[in-house]
Amino acid sequence: MTAPGLAAAFDAYEHALMTNDVEALDRLFAPGPATLRGDVTGLLVGHDAISAFRRARGGAPPRRIVETHVREIDDEHALIVAVTELLTGGRGQQTQLWEHRDGTWVITAAHVSSAAAALDGRIWRLVGDPLLPRSREGSLSGESVAVKDLYAVAGQRVGAGNPARLEAAEPEPEHAWAVERLLAEGADVRGISRTDEFAFGLAGTDTHYGAPPNPRAAQRVPGGSSSGSASAVSLGHATIGLGTDTGGSVRVPAAYQGLWGIRTTHGAVSVRGLLPLSPSFDTVGWLTKGPALLSRVAGSLLPPDETTPGDSVTAEALLGLAEPDIAESIRALVADIPRIDWTFDSSAMLTTFQTLQAYEAWQVHGPWLTTRWDTLRPDVRGRFERAAAVSTGEADRARREVAVLRIRIRELLRDRVLVLPSASSVAPPVHDSDAVHAIRTATMQLTCIAGIAGLPAVSVPGETRAGLPFGMCLVGPPRSDRGLIALAERWHRRSPDDGHPDLTTSHGPERDSRDTRTGS
Amino acid sequence: MTAPGLAAAFDAYEHALMTNDVEALDRLFAPGPATLRGDVTGLLVGHDAISAFRRARGGAPPRRIVETHVREIDDEHALIVAVTELLTGGRGQQTQLWEHRDGTWVITAAHVSSAAAALDGRIWRLVGDPLLPRSREGSLSGESVAVKDLYAVAGQRVGAGNPARLEAAEPEPEHAWAVERLLAEGADVRGISRTDEFAFGLAGTDTHYGAPPNPRAAQRVPGGSSSGSASAVSLGHATIGLGTDTGGSVRVPAAYQGLWGIRTTHGAVSVRGLLPLSPSFDTVGWLTKGPALLSRVAGSLLPPDETTPGDSVTAEALLGLAEPDIAESIRALVADIPRIDWTFDSSAMLTTFQTLQAYEAWQVHGPWLTTRWDTLRPDVRGRFERAAAVSTGEADRARREVAVLRIRIRELLRDRVLVLPSASSVAPPVHDSDAVHAIRTATMQLTCIAGIAGLPAVSVPGETRAGLPFGMCLVGPPRSDRGLIALAERWHRRSPDDGHPDLTTSHGPERDSRDTRTGS
Repeated sequence: MTAPGLAAAFDAYEHALMTNDVEALDRLFAPGPATLRGDVTGLLVGHDAISAFRRARGGAPPRRIVETHVREIDDEHALIVAVTELLTGGRGQQTQLWEHRDGTWVITAAHVSSAAAALDGRIWRLVGDPLLPRSREGSLSGESVAVKDLYAVAGQRVGAGNPARLEAAEPEPEHAWAVERLLAEGADVRGISRTDEFAFGLAGTDTHYGAPPNPRAAQRVPGGSSSGSASAVSLGHATIGLGTDTGGSVRVPAAYQGLWGIRTTHGAVSVRGLLPLSPSFDTVGWLTKGPALLSRVAGSLLPPDETTPGDSVTAEALLGLAEPDIAESIRALVADIPRIDWTFDSSAMLTTFQTLQAYEAWQVHGPWLTTRWDTLRPDVRGRFERAAAVSTGEADRARREVAVLRIRIRELLRDRVLVLPSASSVAPPVHDSDAVHAIRTATMQLTCIAGIAGLPAVSVPGETRAGLPFGMCLVGPPRSDRGLIALAERWHRRSPDDGHPDLTTSHGPERDSRDTRTGS
Repeated sequence: MTAPGLAAAFDAYEHALMTNDVEALDRLFAPGPATLRGDVTGLLVGHDAISAFRRARGGAPPRRIVETHVREIDDEHALIVAVTELLTGGRGQQTQLWEHRDGTWVITAAHVSSAAAALDGRIWRLVGDPLLPRSREGSLSGESVAVKDLYAVAGQRVGAGNPARLEAAEPEPEHAWAVERLLAEGADVRGISRTDEFAFGLAGTDTHYGAPPNPRAAQRVPGGSSSGSASAVSLGHATIGLGTDTGGSVRVPAAYQGLWGIRTTHGAVSVRGLLPLSPSFDTVGWLTKGPALLSRVAGSLLPPDETTPGDSVTAEALLGLAEPDIAESIRALVADIPRIDWTFDSSAMLTTFQTLQAYEAWQVHGPWLTTRWDTLRPDVRGRFERAAAVSTGEADRARREVAVLRIRIRELLRDRVLVLPSASSVAPPVHDSDAVHAIRTATMQLTCIAGIAGLPAVSVPGETRAGLPFGMCLVGPPRSDRGLIALAERWHRRSPDDGHPDLTTSHGPERDSRDTRTGS
């Protein structure tokens, strides 16, 4: 390096990185909003964002520099490309644009990459090429499934997101019904994917293994509890994310990650071999990138429809539960469909749902948990502590209220399809636990409707003006699941082509889609 | 973008990439030896290397551009940072330095990264967090094992690198002895790693799943047949690579990847649950980053030594089998030890070894292979075809010759330790199959010595002047395995600190090593 001071600055950066000297790193990155730093977790724009990232991560992994190439651009600019090698193994690359500014060399743009881990333990517990091969060819040949760690896989234990439960579990003697069916229809099982602990969470952050990434929204939560299955599909690790939906656990990650997802009519798909959370509400569900595969899986797992979905309606009271960007986006799409009066007390309805859900969750997991409180994540522990306190009388009352509400909602909707937000907001920032907590109630007031009424619900992906995924949910009459997917696809196709907000997923077309835009 | 023509050039590049227009891509990258392009497979330096890479890979995966940031440096230079999204899912980043040269914009440096796959199927067939937990705590607690796909893992099938065999296999009822022992000593099993087909290869390229990467030498072969286990250790995916060594299958990947490796005394470690290749020569072996862990695994798998390794000797006839850079490197290290006369005919000895190996391999695999010739990779098929042609008479003669050679080698060496190259060369380029074939004979003339004599052999990592890994091999008296590792560690420590050639591995220190250099 001939540029005076550049070599020293480069060495100073490397030293600061290895000693996690955040002050020095901040000084060595150019101030201002134009500075860039990108790695596998996303591109950070602006010195403030970069500095916040450094303070949160607690240091870079130890490495050495194997090779360095300096390209001096002019007297005040140079590009330095270095090949790095982690002490744990594997090589990576670091590309830095340096600028001589105010008498000192600073980095104005950096790009860092490194060798991949054996597997991403935030997404997967086990993964294979494949983990289980299909048992025969069928309508799903060529597809691969991420199986949420609540479903029995023969020879493997069910972990349910809790390491102590995993350790104590016995290997399952046979596959869960849904897993068996998917294998028999030609799908391979790619692996066993992570879940929020005991599926008792909606953000994807109630996990012992780190929140799975949200590939569509860097540094934002993935949504849960079918978080691993959703991230696996978003990343192309699998094409079908097998999940469960008790109170939104498929619809919320679908919304946050721009995927298609279905919660099936309660009771329509066998839950044999599925670890329950709350049997009154538990359903089998799945996530895909596009509607055609969503529908093909429905053909494998669901019986023929018994009902045909009728007209679509919406309710301002429900749109109003969502944040303005989402409410506006959906209003723009459903301007021409009838509004109905939604006179239910959303707050009371959610309390009823949560009371019965909690009581049942405690019936299922309480006997084991009483001796293993120590193993729970804080938020999940809080939920189970409240669950343990629900009396039989409270549970009986909630059960009666659910039965009444189910009838009243079904009577109100009849064969009509209710359009509402899949979640009350876009995915909140993963490090902002206040935001994660804040939206939980509003989101569950939306998601518990299908839960209480036992109705099927399909989440259709959209994108806000800010470019973040959101979900529009269609709740259909009971046993109309396949028709509801077809209706959702028609909704998707009628989305405007001329800009945001729209429902044309930018997630990339599925294999058999007509959408061939490459975005470039 | 305000710089005239830059946006058009950027768009032209993206279009050329998506249509795999190699001519256009060549034009858009600056000519000359200074142009850079790096991704997860390594950094390419110079237009020629970049062009060759493009011609070999057959196109980039379809993607769209999510975000673009342009930083104009001066009138003739700009950095463009783009966030990309694969149509199959997952985001990446592309950083390009553009230069206005001779009236046109060209790229002088590019750095490309993308989201990781679920697993690297070249290295792993199955992987977990962990795949199998330790059965109790022990001397290997905290370590993780890559199990070569020849060892029985309860509930899993043995694939041996052949997809048809994998499909036809039954799940194993219990773990192989070595796997069971490692779990009982506290190690977790990370996964089942790839092998050259039926372990009948030394390069790591005789595979249906793509050659595993060599993290220490980009675009060079990993070495085999324990290729997946070796790459897994190099990358830090596992700390112990469980392999087998019949004719060099641990020592060669150790040499090529800069790892420590041991082939144990024939018969010293149980092969129960291990799919044989050639029982007269098959041994259990393992690879690690450093000698301390190599030794701890020896403590778990090997019985106490019955012999103590004596003085070290070498033979010019054997050093001369290696390429000059390796011979010179080893000569520099062993200048002060005695030379012995090595009067064996290396060529005849190898023929004897290969005849018996082939005959036994056919006894083991022939009955199945006769109906499944179509499933074999070309080189492996050639070896098995030759194996099928070995007559019982030829095999009997080879068996007698092996017995005589074993006695003669052991009588020559007595308790002395023979120092020789682990392989005849550094890892050849992965796309140069001529080079891969050319070195096989010389390497096997070196490796078959321990095979024929049934002796333990430890490969110690070194680095050539060109910065590529090589291995120095110590062949010890029978049942001296643990002492041989200790001797190898002493050899390693006496390596010069002041430059190449040396034996101080630059692979990064193992966890409990005294070597704390970070290389920066």
